[in-house]
Parts: sequence; C-alpha cells; structure tokens
Amino acid sequence: MSDVPAVKAALKSQAVETPSWAYGNSGTRFKVFAQPGVPRSPQEKLDDAAQVHAFTGVAPTVALHIPWDTVEDYAALARYAKERGLTLGAVNANVFQDDDYKLGSVTHPDPAVRRKALDHLLECVDIMDATGSRDLKLWFSDGTNYPGQDDIAARQDRLAEALGAVYDRLREDQRMLLEYKFFEPAFYTTDVPDWGTAYAHCLRLGPRAQVCVDTGHHAPGTNIEFIVALLLREGKLGAFDFNSRFYADDDLMVGAADPFQLFRIMYEVVRGGGLTSGVAFMLDQCHNIEPKIPAIIRSVMNVQEATAKALLVDRDALAAAQRSGDVLDANAVLMDAYNTDVRPLLAEVREELGIDPDPIAAYRASGWAERIVAERLGGQQAGWGA
Amino acid sequence: MSDVPAVKAALKSQAVETPSWAYGNSGTRFKVFAQPGVPRSPQEKLDDAAQVHAFTGVAPTVALHIPWDTVEDYAALARYAKERGLTLGAVNANVFQDDDYKLGSVTHPDPAVRRKALDHLLECVDIMDATGSRDLKLWFSDGTNYPGQDDIAARQDRLAEALGAVYDRLREDQRMLLEYKFFEPAFYTTDVPDWGTAYAHCLRLGPRAQVCVDTGHHAPGTNIEFIVALLLREGKLGAFDFNSRFYADDDLMVGAADPFQLFRIMYEVVRGGGLTSGVAFMLDQCHNIEPKIPAIIRSVMNVQEATAKALLVDRDALAAAQRSGDVLDANAVLMDAYNTDVRPLLAEVREELGIDPDPIAAYRASGWAERIVAERLGGQQAGWGA
Amino acid sequence: MSDVPAVKAALKSQAVETPSWAYGNSGTRFKVFAQPGVPRSPQEKLDDAAQVHAFTGVAPTVALHIPWDTVEDYAALARYAKERGLTLGAVNANVFQDDDYKLGSVTHPDPAVRRKALDHLLECVDIMDATGSRDLKLWFSDGTNYPGQDDIAARQDRLAEALGAVYDRLREDQRMLLEYKFFEPAFYTTDVPDWGTAYAHCLRLGPRAQVCVDTGHHAPGTNIEFIVALLLREGKLGAFDFNSRFYADDDLMVGAADPFQLFRIMYEVVRGGGLTSGVAFMLDQCHNIEPKIPAIIRSVMNVQEATAKALLVDRDALAAAQRSGDVLDANAVLMDAYNTDVRPLLAEVREELGIDPDPIAAYRASGWAERIVAERLGGQQAGWGA
Amino acid sequence: MSDVPAVKAALKSQAVETPSWAYGNSGTRFKVFAQPGVPRSPQEKLDDAAQVHAFTGVAPTVALHIPWDTVEDYAALARYAKERGLTLGAVNANVFQDDDYKLGSVTHPDPAVRRKALDHLLECVDIMDATGSRDLKLWFSDGTNYPGQDDIAARQDRLAEALGAVYDRLREDQRMLLEYKFFEPAFYTTDVPDWGTAYAHCLRLGPRAQVCVDTGHHAPGTNIEFIVALLLREGKLGAFDFNSRFYADDDLMVGAADPFQLFRIMYEVVRGGGLTSGVAFMLDQCHNIEPKIPAIIRSVMNVQEATAKALLVDRDALAAAQRSGDVLDANAVLMDAYNTDVRPLLAEVREELGIDPDPIAAYRASGWAERIVAERLGGQQAGWGA
Repeated sequence: MSDVPAVKAALKSQAVETPSWAYGNSGTRFKVFAQPGVPRSPQEKLDDAAQVHAFTGVAPTVALHIPWDTVEDYAALARYAKERGLTLGAVNANVFQDDDYKLGSVTHPDPAVRRKALDHLLECVDIMDATGSRDLKLWFSDGTNYPGQDDIAARQDRLAEALGAVYDRLREDQRMLLEYKFFEPAFYTTDVPDWGTAYAHCLRLGPRAQVCVDTGHHAPGTNIEFIVALLLREGKLGAFDFNSRFYADDDLMVGAADPFQLFRIMYEVVRGGGLTSGVAFMLDQCHNIEPKIPAIIRSVMNVQEATAKALLVDRDALAAAQRSGDVLDANAVLMDAYNTDVRPLLAEVREELGIDPDPIAAYRASGWAERIVAERLGGQQAGWGA
Repeated sequence: MSDVPAVKAALKSQAVETPSWAYGNSGTRFKVFAQPGVPRSPQEKLDDAAQVHAFTGVAPTVALHIPWDTVEDYAALARYAKERGLTLGAVNANVFQDDDYKLGSVTHPDPAVRRKALDHLLECVDIMDATGSRDLKLWFSDGTNYPGQDDIAARQDRLAEALGAVYDRLREDQRMLLEYKFFEPAFYTTDVPDWGTAYAHCLRLGPRAQVCVDTGHHAPGTNIEFIVALLLREGKLGAFDFNSRFYADDDLMVGAADPFQLFRIMYEVVRGGGLTSGVAFMLDQCHNIEPKIPAIIRSVMNVQEATAKALLVDRDALAAAQRSGDVLDANAVLMDAYNTDVRPLLAEVREELGIDPDPIAAYRASGWAERIVAERLGGQQAGWGA
Repeated sequence: MSDVPAVKAALKSQAVETPSWAYGNSGTRFKVFAQPGVPRSPQEKLDDAAQVHAFTGVAPTVALHIPWDTVEDYAALARYAKERGLTLGAVNANVFQDDDYKLGSVTHPDPAVRRKALDHLLECVDIMDATGSRDLKLWFSDGTNYPGQDDIAARQDRLAEALGAVYDRLREDQRMLLEYKFFEPAFYTTDVPDWGTAYAHCLRLGPRAQVCVDTGHHAPGTNIEFIVALLLREGKLGAFDFNSRFYADDDLMVGAADPFQLFRIMYEVVRGGGLTSGVAFMLDQCHNIEPKIPAIIRSVMNVQEATAKALLVDRDALAAAQRSGDVLDANAVLMDAYNTDVRPLLAEVREELGIDPDPIAAYRASGWAERIVAERLGGQQAGWGA
Repeated sequence: MSDVPAVKAALKSQAVETPSWAYGNSGTRFKVFAQPGVPRSPQEKLDDAAQVHAFTGVAPTVALHIPWDTVEDYAALARYAKERGLTLGAVNANVFQDDDYKLGSVTHPDPAVRRKALDHLLECVDIMDATGSRDLKLWFSDGTNYPGQDDIAARQDRLAEALGAVYDRLREDQRMLLEYKFFEPAFYTTDVPDWGTAYAHCLRLGPRAQVCVDTGHHAPGTNIEFIVALLLREGKLGAFDFNSRFYADDDLMVGAADPFQLFRIMYEVVRGGGLTSGVAFMLDQCHNIEPKIPAIIRSVMNVQEATAKALLVDRDALAAAQRSGDVLDANAVLMDAYNTDVRPLLAEVREELGIDPDPIAAYRASGWAERIVAERLGGQQAGWGA
C-alpha cells in the first residue's frame, strides 16, 4: 500500500483497550508473584492505564471487571477516568469466583445459583448505564470436569435462557460480546467452547449480540484468522481479546509468541473492514513475571506493528496474484509487508501525535515505575487469580 | 437401563452404512499397499459389502463415491445391490482428484473450474435420483497451503454460491450433508474447517442441509460429543463419518483408538434422540494394512458395542445425580455402563437376528476371503488414494 | 491369561501411593473451591490416607510435599503413619512457591537463588533419612515465558549442577526421581519438558536417578505407553504420577479421561516387568470439585482395573499374532482383555484381602466423611495451589 | 551484532542442502498434481538444483534418495554434479515403499524383511563410498497402526540391531543421521517418534551417530529450539531437515508457517556453535501446488533471512539482560533483531558473491522454467509420493 498518509491515519485512529485487571497481580495455579507498586483500587488501575495511553496515544479506554472493580459510584469512576484522558470501556461480568459457582453459574444445575449469576449479569448492565460503556463482555467458566457430570444439552438450554434475559435488558446502544474458550478451568466440557457455539447463540439473540475472539482460546493449530474472516463476513465479530500463547491459554503479551499470526489476523481485520466497523480491540493478558505497565505498552505497540504491516499489504498486487492462481507471488506479496520493519513508520506516527517515538524509553524515563513503588505502600494489591 | 428388550430392539434397528471405497486399496502419501482380492468394480465392492451385512445384520446400505463408482446404469447398480440384500446409500461427490482442482473446486479462483466442480455435484444429484439415495455428502478438500494464497472470504462466497445451486437442485426427500475437516490436504486454510462453518452454511441453506460429523476431522482435544449434543439440539446433525485417530485424520477402525470417546458420542446420540431421527451412521475409514472385510465387520461391531453401552446408561439415576450436583455419582453411573461387557448381549441380539453370534469367526469360516483372492485375478483394483 | 490365581496375587501385591496434597484443597488459577472437612495438618492428611488404604487395601504409602508437610519431627510423623497402617513414601521438594523463584529455582540466573533452592532439595534428603523414604521426587516449574528471557543451554548447565549435588548426597538405598512436564507454569520453555531431557540427565547422574512419568505432562497426542516401554527397556523408569487429562495438565482422576490409554500403559508395565521392578505407582491429582477421599478411592480402583485387564491379556496368543503379522488378531487379543468387565474379579480380590468388595459404598457407610466435616472446624485448611 | 562484516562472512559460508526429491512431483494421499517440466532422472534433478545454487549462491550440495535416485554409476553421477558446480550430499535410504515393508522394515516381525531392509541400508553406504557423501540419513516409517499390533520393546531391539550393523559399516569420515518423527505413516506407534528415542540410540552407537531434527516432525506445541539447544549441548545435533507446518508434517516451505520459530531455531544454532560445527542444513519439503524451483529458492532465502536475524542479535546486551532477570529487556533484544528487515543486507551479500540480489526475479528472467517445460517431454516424471 503506497498511500502512507492513509496508513498513518488508520494507525492514529486505532484504539486498543486495556483491561483493568492486567494492572493487578496475576499468576498460575502454582503461584501468584506479587509485584511492588501494583494498584490497590480501581482508581489506581486507571492511573496506570492513563500512563499507557499517555505514552502510546492509542489506549484511551479501559475495560472493567465486576466485582473486581466494584465501587460505590460508577459515574464518579467514569469522571475519574475522564479527568485522566480515559473512557471506561467494556464491562466484564465475573461469575466464576464465588463458592456457589463450583459447578457453574448460568448453567448450574441449581436454579438458585443460576438466578444469582443472572442477577450479577444484569447488575453489570446497570453499571454500563452508569459508566456509559457500550459493551458487556461475557465469558463463562461454566463446564464440567467429568463425563456424565451434567447434561450437555440441558446446560445449553440454561445458557440460552440467561443470555436471552440479559439481551432483553440491553439498551439499543449497548452490545453483548460472547466469548468462547476451548478449556480451562473446566476440563471435560466447556459450555461455550468454540466460535460456533458463541455464533449460534448470538445469531438467535439478535444483532447486538456478537462474538468476542480471544486469541488464546482455541484448540492447537486452529486458524484464527479464518474465524476472523468468517465472523466479519457474517457481521458477527464484535471484539478481540488479545494475548498470545505457545501452549494453552498462556495469556502472554500479544504478538510475543507468534507475531506472524497476529499479522495475519490483523490482515483479515483490515481486509474485512474490521478497523472501522466497531470491532473492539482489547488486551486480555497476564503479566505474571514481567512488570505490568511496560508489558502493556509493549503489547499495544505489538498490535500497532501488526496493524501497520497489515495496512501495508499491496492489496491490488495480492488480488491479481490470487486471481491468477500464482501461489508463490500471492504469498510473496503478503510476506513483503510482513518483512517490512514498520518501527520507523510508527515512530513518525507517534511524533505526529505529539508523543515520544519510543514509548518504552519514555515511560522508563518518566519515573512512574519508581513513584508507584514508593507511594503504593500498605493496602491490598489488586489481584486477578484465585 | 433395565429394559433389556428395548435395548435389544434399538440395537437390531440400528443401521451402519459402509462406504464402497473402504473395500478398495488405500494408504498414505508414502505408499498404498495393495491387498489380494480387492474389488475391481463397484459391483465387487457391493459383493463384499453384502458379506459385511450378512455377518453383522446391521449394515444394509452402501455409500457410493463418484467418480470412483461411476457406472453406465445406476438403476442397474441399485438392482444389483438389492439382489444382495443391500440398498445404495449416500452419494459422495469427489472433487479433489482432477488436475483442475489443484487450487480448489467450488472455491477455485477460476470460474471455469468452479463451474466444472458444480456440474459434478449436480450430476451426483442425478445419480441419487437414479439410485434412490437420500443423501448427498459433500466434503471439499478446498483450501490453501500458504498465507495470502487466496482470499478467505471470497472463497466463502464461492462456496455459498455452489452450495445454494446444489441445494436448489435437491428434491424434497433428498438431503445435503456438509462435512467439515480441520486440515489435509490443504495445510493453511481449509474452506470448511469446523462444525461452525458447516453449520452456518447449512443454516442459510435450509432444513435439508445438515452437518456431517467425521470423528477424525477435529483439532487435537476437541470434545466431539459436545458438538454432537449441540447439533442435535439445533436439529442440524445429519450424519456421522465414523473412524478413529490418535493424531490427525488417521482413519483407523472406529473405536480402535479411543473406545471411551465413541461411547460418549453414542451416549449423546441416544440422549439427543439421534438413534431415531434420521441421523446416518456411516463408516469412513482406511484399512491400509489390515484386511478390509474383517476390519469393516470389526468396525460395525465396535459401533454396536458403544451403542449398547450408551443404551445401558441408567438415565434416571444419571439425571438424579446430575440434578443434585453429585459429580462422582454422576460420573459413576456413566462409567458403570461403559465398564459393562456388552459382548454377551450383542451375541444374543445376533442370535435373535438369526446370524452367528461371532461375526468375525463366521466370516473367516465362510471362505469368502480365500475365494476373492482366488477369483479376482487381473484387472485394476479399486483404490482410494492418489 | 488363564492363571487367575496369579492375576489375583499380582493385584494383591500392587501398591498405589497417594499424595498428601490431594487430600487438601486445590483448584485452578481462577478459583480454589474449599471443601468442608479438609485436613489442616500433615497428620490429618494421614488420617484420610489411612481411610483410603483401609477401604482399598492397596494404598499403604503416602507421599509428602515439602514445605507443605513441614513438621518439627519427621520421625514422629513416620510413627504417626505407622500407627495407622501407613508408611511415608516419596518426598517431593517444592521449589516453586517462594517469591524468590519467580524466574526459576535451580536454574535461576541468580546464584543466590539457586543455592537457596539446592539447600531445600538437600533438606528434603535429610527428611528422607528421618522418614525412611526411598524416593526423592523432583519436579521443577523452572522455565521461561518469553523468547530470549534466559539462555536455554545455561539453564541446563545450572540444572545439571544442582542435580549432581543432590545425587551425591543420596544414600545408596535412596533414589532420585526426575519428573518432566510439557509446560505450565512456564509458557515458553520448561527446563525439563520431556522424557528425553529427564532421561539424559538421569543417564549422566547414575543408576539411582530415574525418570518419573506423569501421565498428564505430555504434548497432545503423545504415545505415553511407548515412553513407558522405552524407559523400562533402558532400566530408567522409576515411577508414575497418575492422573488423567483431556487437554493439558488437567489432573483429573486417573482413568477418567481415557481408560483405554491407562490400560495400554499398564500393559506395557506388565510386559516390561514394571510391576515387580521397583516402579512406584503414585497418584498426582487435583480433586477441585469432587470430594477428595472417595475420588482418591475411585482413582486407586481405576488403576487396579487397568492393571487387572493388563494382566488378563493372553500374552501367548498376542505374541503369536504379532509374530505372524496378523494385525486384526493381535489387536483383538488386546481388546479382548480390555473389554472384559474385571469388577467381579476385583471384588473377589478384595474379599480375599478381607475388605469390602465395594470400597466406595463401604467408605460412605463408614461415616468418615460426616465425621471430618463435623470435627475439623477452625484452623487453616491445607491447600495445594497458589 | 554490530560486526556487519562478520555477519556477512557467516552468511556467505552457510550452505543449505537441497533434496533431489523436492524437484520431483509430490502430493498428499488424496492427489499428486503433476507439474510440467519436472525432472525425469537424477541428472535432471541435478540440473535444477544447479539453478538453485546459481541464483542463491549457498546451495552447493544435493541430497540423494535411494532407490529414487538409483543409477548405474554413482561416481559418474558425482562427476555430473561437479560439472554443474554441485556436490552430492547426504544419502537417504528409503525403506518404506516396497510391498514387503507393510508392517515395517528394520523393525518388521519377519527376520527376512529385516534382512532385506538392512541390506538396503548397507547398499546406501556403498553408494556413499562412491559419491563421497559424508552422511547417511535414516528415517524409518516403521511403526504400528493398532494397539497390540506388535511389541514395542521388541521393535526397539530390532531397530538397535540394524543400526548397530550399519554403524559398524561406516567409515571413520562418515556419519549416520537418525531422524525421528511424531507420526505418519504409522498411526499408533512410530519406532523413532521423538528426539529422545533418536538420542538414546545415537548415544549407544557412538560419536558418528547424530540426530537429525526435521522441523515438521514434532507434537503440537513442541519447543523445537529447546531440542536444538539440548542436542548442541550434548554434541548430538547432526542435521536439520527444514520445512514448515501449521498442523502435522505439512512439508511447506521452511519459514512459511512460522518465521519467528525459524528465527528462534537459528538463534540457538548460532548460540550453540552449530553454524560451524558440521551441522547439515537440509531442506526436506513438498511443493505440491507451487512450482518447485522458485519455491526452493524462496526456501533457501528464508533460511538465510532467519540466519541473518539470528546473527544480528546483540549477544552482549542479551546476556546482560538475562543475567539481571530483566524479562522485558531480554525479550526486546531478541525481538529487535527479529524485527529488522534483513533483505537489504542479504542483497549486499549476494552482490558481494557476484550474483543477482534478487534470486527469484533473476531465476524468472533466466528462462529456465520455460525451457524445462519445453524440453522435458515424454518419459516418466520423478515423483515422491505413493
């Protein structure tokens, strides 16, 4: 793509949402390693998110997770964000950490537990009303560990019922994003294990229900960009949860494990019009051993680099090679963009946005990391895991 | 399930369709090992299939594969089958072995190739009219090997167009079964890679388009019985292609690699009403190194054993344990059926059907294996592979 | 195998070691669901383990995990066990839950952390001296999350150095069991990721270093019984950590996910002489949502059933079919044993051992479950996870 | 790495061996698509390989495959190669396409078949004596499809016996390269399925037996660069068979599926001294749908680009970051090299070698593709598959 100004404009208009929980501690079932300076409140998470936005210029919204980000006054939280140049983004409804949810939430065999879970989902829509959030993101850990443990089809019925109740509660300008996941924490069945299941439910619900693709939630070898292309073609791609993985849902920094895959995904986004059609680009990662803020900055940059390469694909040359069945040429056109070093281009984009061309170095020079370690003493650090 | 007569009745009414190509030679890309006595014509394949039915009592139909089973007069072939106690079953349209299909058939970038492929599919419906077959089974090897090689969404458009044309051609009493496959022979994208893609197409086409689940066509770790339960719940499960695998699409004898998985699948079939709702149970295997006829007999028996165990599950006890959230008990109810040795029960079923209780021994004693080796000399053996 | 008395004798002499931590709470990174009645001390874990042994008759030893089972006086703990009919088994050295181990233990880039980890390992040998344990089991969570994070080969050097120091400390009658794991909690490299790495280290160390096969620690599709056969042939199979999985290291009850695989593993054990050569059969599981004691009893029974079927294989008929290249017959001989319902045989074995033929029912009738819920009030429940 | 001249020198001295069979037709079990102009003799394969070397400057040797490249006079074939600027490289012994090998070659239950296979291996050493080849490359398709089919340990015994006999036959300046493969064409067990098995055999054989790593022959998720680092540390890495895959052994062009993985592998090669220690870098691919010669040129270039990036890693900065436990910085040092566009550097290298900086364009301009299509009429095209 020779139209560099258009590429730059697209890159400037891209927004990557960061999740509040990524600023808190996280880990594996084996150990959560606490890090000094980690936020102790939703407000401190927003303070950190404001740093990410300040140094990248493209991370203006922050996703909440309820109940982790529960506050008395959500409108006040939204104002707090706004004062720091941020907007509150998607609301994620957590229905997996209450003791009642041991055998499921909205698919639990006990109607009382299902009711409790549904009430929590509906409360999250109330919060959206207060924060002005557009998206309700639903991921269910629901599933079973053992064959026979529960009835697969009955759980689908219960799921459909809960989703329907939530969908009916949404305002016209609000969306439901239904996320799927291959496995974990359920180890035999998961009630929304793949894009097909999420798609089938969204289709029945209506146009404001869309699928959220978490890049770490697939079976080994799954071609994620194919799913992206399909969902865009069907008008059902609502959002991404970005992260990367070598094995399962490793939740590493997006682009860290397979940068070529991220590029291919972003190419399908660009090709399918996803950059401008309301698809939400969110991070959903765990920085278990690396410092969180620079890791999130690095992740935003990785998304940008993949997007830049995707925008640089010579679409006309590609289409010509594809039409003529020239396998090697078509592949070469794509690889030519991928092999380009787009870091100078992104440095220019940042300078034109009035920020430092090197976000990591600028963040380090800012003293923020030292400041939060010094100031955030005492209290209970925010944590993601069990 | 204490109602043994009902279990027996269900087992007697089950039909397992065997595929004509399984009687021919097959192999891997490394080598096709020819076996003595292999059929040299569609008629000889039917002769072998008649043996399988004679000794199992539950394999009355045979799937055709066009062009491998091309004959002058399909009505005559159907009569030939009938004279041997068989009926012609699903017609499979092969659009992957012509040189024109190197880059695809119905999704090929060249409209002329797409037209040729579509004509072949339509011809297969003509054949169905002649044979009286209900089902057109469509599996497409279409896909790409390299990123960029072709446009994913454009290929979906071409696929949808072809499927629509074929669907419109079907009679009211005919069905289209759309099969999906994770990969192979395409190694980057496959145009119908998963149940979700097949489902989305079938949904748009209409009620006579249904999904065919090949048990070897999934990503590692995929919970196949979940898909079965889902498709039954949606009314979109049309058929099974049975086989088994340890790795990829190994096409081993069904039940050989993971008999517990086969049981779980058959349990969902029973639970979802699939035994009586028109779901076709077909074998789709390659007997590369073992003799074909006894391998097919063994496979039919494996399906029967899994079905018997599924029918023996104490559904009331299971439902009670599931409702009460008793994980161990619910699992134990299922495992109790699985751990039962159902071979004596199936021996009784066979005796009541008037056949030998030991199909393998009876086949061996029949002399058929020796006879075909002696008689089928010269000519071109039927083969499946490249 | 027609020699039923020999089969029974083998089953009576089999010992399955249960791990102390399986009696405590466990979970995933998302949530640890506490269960009422869970032990609050190593002694209470032994009390529960004694129940498992009482009702199965074949679980006389208990593995410890240090520091989870840290006590003042290990000899006293051994006596406590003995008074309950138990012996203390393998000592597991936990070097993954200290904050210092964020980037590794014995392979950490910092020599001070390595020294600390090594000291812990050596302390575990001291504990073995006190408890009379034969085996030191070493599993290292060490690895990296990101390419470039640390030097792969340098970490091997550090690992080799630590293992050497521990090996030198062992007495002649003590063994080191080196466990490998495909991934988790490290998500890019793991320092002992496969049997080959464990084998290479054990080979250099000497005859008292042997490999521990955890059945959940392999890449998707790995043929575990092949590894078992190989290690037995090389004299390097020291132990099993039994559990089962559908996806990753799910740690479900052994035999729950793939009972046929467990049978194939036990067949190779029997065939390779592993039942009588000092191989330790240990459980290593997480009962996240099911009650722990009956789940462990069920697991012991699953190992017994797989062993019984493996012992029933007609070895002479199998060898004859294998020699003659009769693929179907050889497979049929194996499957005949697998398809046998061995529960009546095991009921007889239990009655001959003087215990109830139905361990689960007997445990339930014993009142132990209710008693521990009533008595174990207050205190800090033992937990496995983060 | 700031020492650009040293990087260039390393790149100039790198040699990538191309395999004779990649110039012939190949395919999948579903179809082999013939391509016009494909060689009909070993000599024509060498003619094509000479083109690859002429345009890349770094592909001076060609691997043979026996019996596909069987000729009367191997010394004459070596002279034919030499006249075209080539040397004959590794000799690959094919023991999988004879009807006798249906159940195995050197591990077959029948001693007569084993003898036949061994004789073929020994004959390949005779050929090496004639061609001056250093390396005998052994890949065995041997394995089983069904549990019970044959005895795993007995097959290892037979394998060890055959390898020993071949090893003893090698001259002091000859090597045996033992390749492993996860699965295919065997679908239950493979007799050399992983690096550990190959390593164990090579260790017993002696220093001239080394492991060959085929980049497509691993379980999903396997960290190949870890294996490379390990084998280099043990002095047992003999060679690479390069190709790439998304799923199984797809045999796509190296670097096409995961260029970042190829870079990580080459980094471990550089770091472990593998560029200068006799490791053979061979391609082993199937160009099923793309023209073979330019695909091989592209593959050689992909290896060069990955090597160039690996050489550009700032080793001092990396070591410093690793020592200090700075996860993000260490990763960033590696990624900085990976994200560099090395194509200009390689263009310079080529110009300094006196060849065209754009090998693909130069090959296309040469007219060779048109010439072989025009001239190679009639005869039997060379083919790889079944």
